[in-house]
Amino acid sequence: MSDPSGAAAPAGVPDDHWRPTYEDIHIMIRNMADIVREEFQPDLLVAIGGGGFFPARVLRTFLKKRDEKQPGKMRNVPIQAIGLSLYEEVDGVSEEQIGTEVVRTQWLDTARRGTDSQGRGDAGGLLGKNVLIVDEVDDSRTTLHYAYHELLKDVKKALEAYTPEERAQLPPTRFAVFVVHNKLGPKRAELPILARPADDRIVDGVSTGVYYYAAETTPPVWIDFPWEQTDILEHNRLAALAQAQPRPEAPP
Amino acid sequence: MSDPSGAAAPAGVPDDHWRPTYEDIHIMIRNMADIVREEFQPDLLVAIGGGGFFPARVLRTFLKKRDEKQPGKMRNVPIQAIGLSLYEEVDGVSEEQIGTEVVRTQWLDTARRGTDSQGRGDAGGLLGKNVLIVDEVDDSRTTLHYAYHELLKDVKKALEAYTPEERAQLPPTRFAVFVVHNKLGPKRAELPILARPADDRIVDGVSTGVYYYAAETTPPVWIDFPWEQTDILEHNRLAALAQAQPRPEAPP
Repeated sequence: MSDPSGAAAPAGVPDDHWRPTYEDIHIMIRNMADIVREEFQPDLLVAIGGGGFFPARVLRTFLKKRDEKQPGKMRNVPIQAIGLSLYEEVDGVSEEQIGTEVVRTQWLDTARRGTDSQGRGDAGGLLGKNVLIVDEVDDSRTTLHYAYHELLKDVKKALEAYTPEERAQLPPTRFAVFVVHNKLGPKRAELPILARPADDRIVDGVSTGVYYYAAETTPPVWIDFPWEQTDILEHNRLAALAQAQPRPEAPP
Repeated sequence: MSDPSGAAAPAGVPDDHWRPTYEDIHIMIRNMADIVREEFQPDLLVAIGGGGFFPARVLRTFLKKRDEKQPGKMRNVPIQAIGLSLYEEVDGVSEEQIGTEVVRTQWLDTARRGTDSQGRGDAGGLLGKNVLIVDEVDDSRTTLHYAYHELLKDVKKALEAYTPEERAQLPPTRFAVFVVHNKLGPKRAELPILARPADDRIVDGVSTGVYYYAAETTPPVWIDFPWEQTDILEHNRLAALAQAQPRPEAPP
């Protein structure tokens, strides 16, 4: 029977859209946070805005650290934000370039960061920290690649002010990536992802690898994030409809 | 009858906690965004991290602007992040001081911002813009007061490089505040809130007032934000229980 109101479910649910609800994502982040906390012990989150804002804020709820001076007290892990966009909307950009160029709209507030008694910088607070880079999705890996390599560059530059002996004494700087969804499929850029934490090697004060956490791994579907929805109740309705059915599979 | 599992609803729901769900907040933001877009037309969001991250990201969904060069295209309003905390957890801080001292953990990335042909700065991209400052809650107003006055200071400093005649020619800089919840009750700091948009007065290139938007105004209850919850399903269950009953009233 046709629905004269036009309010029926789209014919194709499940279609090639993945529709996590806020609650789905919150719970996925909670589950993965246990592993992140145990394995990586982040000192600092770097949220890639705007997509990383929500996951970073929820992660913080689950990554509280015991205060060193007051063991009964739990402290928030600080969040720094950076702004990155894929440069996709300019006339004359070729198909090849689309999705590969990253534009910085905000970076770490290095002007406000510490220097030691000899005037040496701390790379926007990254030096000697376990730094967790947070975004919503790892699609082409372009943005994550850019964020990791640019932050690493800042750290290596700060480390130049130290002698090799001093570098060996410093607490090491480590990087990890956290995304809500990793989309399976070809990537346009690579990260030196550690197969196991035990493979982590510190050279000249900084890890040569990246810890990698995806709360969920998906086929290369469209992901409709709840914070992008103009009608969140309709989004949740479609999510519930799709949940009652098998999810779409990755193409062969 | 007592519940031996201990899993019953707390005796006092509704209690003095306000439990908005993600969907409640998403919809409240959508409704208020229509007014913000019409009245203030923001060019830039400044999210106060971590609480302002979620509202800023959702707001952006509802504040897209028509592209000036391609009218068929809608563009995202950019988000810059700043990090502010209330300095509440230090030994020797008196009761009076608690909640009144604000600590900057990140500020606008002024190093990366534009200068004109004469080397004049643009206050971290704020100059000549309608700037919407976003946070989750206006409780004591201390953080919002700090953010507004410090951003205003940056703008006034940038304007010093211009002559009065030049300032009169520049597009004006305006500020607005957006919070999900404004808690009724005494505030520790004030903002020059405009009673009506028509009261907006530009002096020396910058508005003397602040546009103010609260998606919801509440009595001075505890607000349990969904992104702070370790158990989001229990939060939603209590929210649904409370919704079936009258909400707590402000004390007389």
